Amino acid sequence: MDFGINNFFDKKYKDSKIGHFQDLEHIDGLSISTVSCGLYDKKRDDLVLFYFRESANYANVYTQSKIVSENIKWNKKIKEKRIFGILINTRNANAMTGKDGYNSLKKISLNLSKLLNSKQIIDEDKPIEIKPSQILFACTGTIGEKFPENKILDNTKNLVEKIKYNQNKLIWIKAALGIMTTDTKPKLSMAECKIGGSDVKIYGIAKGSGMIFPNMATTLGFIFTDANISSSILKQILNLNIKTTFNAITCDGDTSTNDMVSIFATGKANNKEVKSLKDPKLKQFIKSVHQVMLNLAKRVASDGEGATKFVTVNCINSKTERDAKNICFSIANSPLVKTAIFGQDPNWGRIAMAIGKSGASVKLEKLSLHMGSISILNKGILDKNYNEDICSEYMKNENIEITVDLSIGSKNFTAYTMDLSKEYIEINSDYRS
Amino acid sequence: MDFGINNFFDKKYKDSKIGHFQDLEHIDGLSISTVSCGLYDKKRDDLVLFYFRESANYANVYTQSKIVSENIKWNKKIKEKRIFGILINTRNANAMTGKDGYNSLKKISLNLSKLLNSKQIIDEDKPIEIKPSQILFACTGTIGEKFPENKILDNTKNLVEKIKYNQNKLIWIKAALGIMTTDTKPKLSMAECKIGGSDVKIYGIAKGSGMIFPNMATTLGFIFTDANISSSILKQILNLNIKTTFNAITCDGDTSTNDMVSIFATGKANNKEVKSLKDPKLKQFIKSVHQVMLNLAKRVASDGEGATKFVTVNCINSKTERDAKNICFSIANSPLVKTAIFGQDPNWGRIAMAIGKSGASVKLEKLSLHMGSISILNKGILDKNYNEDICSEYMKNENIEITVDLSIGSKNFTAYTMDLSKEYIEINSDYRS
Repeated sequence: MDFGINNFFDKKYKDSKIGHFQDLEHIDGLSISTVSCGLYDKKRDDLVLFYFRESANYANVYTQSKIVSENIKWNKKIKEKRIFGILINTRNANAMTGKDGYNSLKKISLNLSKLLNSKQIIDEDKPIEIKPSQILFACTGTIGEKFPENKILDNTKNLVEKIKYNQNKLIWIKAALGIMTTDTKPKLSMAECKIGGSDVKIYGIAKGSGMIFPNMATTLGFIFTDANISSSILKQILNLNIKTTFNAITCDGDTSTNDMVSIFATGKANNKEVKSLKDPKLKQFIKSVHQVMLNLAKRVASDGEGATKFVTVNCINSKTERDAKNICFSIANSPLVKTAIFGQDPNWGRIAMAIGKSGASVKLEKLSLHMGSISILNKGILDKNYNEDICSEYMKNENIEITVDLSIGSKNFTAYTMDLSKEYIEINSDYRS
Repeated sequence: MDFGINNFFDKKYKDSKIGHFQDLEHIDGLSISTVSCGLYDKKRDDLVLFYFRESANYANVYTQSKIVSENIKWNKKIKEKRIFGILINTRNANAMTGKDGYNSLKKISLNLSKLLNSKQIIDEDKPIEIKPSQILFACTGTIGEKFPENKILDNTKNLVEKIKYNQNKLIWIKAALGIMTTDTKPKLSMAECKIGGSDVKIYGIAKGSGMIFPNMATTLGFIFTDANISSSILKQILNLNIKTTFNAITCDGDTSTNDMVSIFATGKANNKEVKSLKDPKLKQFIKSVHQVMLNLAKRVASDGEGATKFVTVNCINSKTERDAKNICFSIANSPLVKTAIFGQDPNWGRIAMAIGKSGASVKLEKLSLHMGSISILNKGILDKNYNEDICSEYMKNENIEITVDLSIGSKNFTAYTMDLSKEYIEINSDYRS
């Protein structure tokens, strides 16, 4: 692994737009392993295993695409109450690979569960029998290429041997690096809170890039907690939080063939189990999971291919949340708006264009528009105090915030995106080479 | 005018992707004038008048945006049976300009109608009184900037003096150049046909660029014919043809604040008036108008900002036309597909991704995909004979054709777009300077 770790302590991973991530430490009940299978020409880790040696509760949300990858099909079929691990590979999406792609996962899960079972016999007093159907898969990379089954199978033994039962910040960085594709920075986030009297940890990593139009990135997010919490409540918390976090950068989850956000709970915090989402004891936890998911989602948007600026788009006082969301994404998806932001040009007319084409209910005579704290439009007309030079100065910031106030209702939405630069084209016209 | 005309006979305007346009000549009943009002820093014509001295029948289709420019509001209010002219300016969209922008059009139309009436007194035996409400406006350019009323008013006299009652290919080129914004090429097209026994001409010009995402361009199209044909039938023909021409590049007309396609008929061909769209005598004419509109629409897509390739996307054998259209636009709008085409990379997985995210009904096991005549996917799996080297060779063409065969119905759609290059970013991050 000569990819990244040596640079860990320098500024390479510092994201000045979002802030540097806090260090992640150990989560009881979780083990991590990363190896290189040679899926890339250059030497880098490309296969990551999260292993729960006493199993874990879990919940997933998936892409809404009509064409889904073979690993998503595999995961969706799993009906086990608890799972033992998730294996993540990069470089190959295992999408449009048909039965062969699916059968590869069968073989790999069989092989991996056997290896984990033998390891348990050595390591544990009372080994548990892991079934192939208790392993999830996440894949990301090129669509339509043959899945590299053999390269992965050749490395599962090494992967299992390298399992570390204790985590420190370096292994987390390695894992976050190991799931990257065109990302330039690993994405990690953490929070701690209490459930009842017990301390619980919420750690997360994510990958995602190619974010010019949010709905085209492959985004993977993995959240880990030691909380003792049922799969059913995990699922509710995931659904509750996804809309304003990963789906605020990935447009309705109407995304790539491979998108997936998962949450795993080892239960090792030994808090008393909470039976209902509405129990006040869960309030902090729900908020903390949201915080971790939002932070990861922002990191994904901020690391959009070629991004030079992080852009927050708010739409407030809309009749419906749907309208607010449509306006936010119409602006956040507009290449004309995004290139203007890249060019540091306060060309607010393009924002108005994007509002107009969104199809949302708008009363022009009530519409206000802010760039940061600068008022541009006030009730449909150019603010008397608007000074383009001041706004041009604002556009030089790394963080740009656009706020559209419709003044016709009370619903709000916020979307996150980045600017559109020449580098995006360079990256994407040459992705596979 | 040192902008373009001198280069007319060299290759500058030859579009190797669509083919050079045929020369346009005279249309009886039409007059053209172009001047420079100094709306741009550089010297170029920026104000174009099409004048019908004995008036004309007409029909328009407009942008579906919720925020429309003041000139579209003006045009929509006009209930006159026949109109006398359309004035087109560039550089300023007259959008988000409020009452001031609208009042500018009032003043300009008043001034222009007076000047035209005085000119008629000199030129004609029986002058007709032109009302301000018999003049249409088309505007294109930056949104939200004060409309340059005075610069235009200062030049209407000159514009009227320069009116040419006879057209030749040069005046048409001047007009097509005069309505351009970031376009690199003037867009002209023509067809001739018969209605009953009479020869009629159909000439058209268009402008449009910024076409990376079709639904963000400002597209203007103006069709002129000497046919004797009612406004009502013109409207029906426009509606019939727009879907597969300008709306096949501009996504449901859900476009900029200023989009507008108009057709004008002087009646000078003196054909016997046809009363119904279904009259077989109109068949040729409808087809010829379609041909002119499609050719102009393709020129707009082909001249998309920074475009190096013209891309045709077909979706065939869909359950519904809506699905076929959604798939075509999902592909044609995908920056990942478009950058791959720019990079000449046969990365068909991105096309599959775009099909999947379109939300259209797709049966993977029936899906076939062609690039030109090269079969890539056959009933959901990679074609046994697929050879990436051959496909890479195909990607070097200037014209790329993608065909998705769903094999689950009988509806088809075709969309037109271009690739996404670094130059697009350059143009759009620096549009106003």
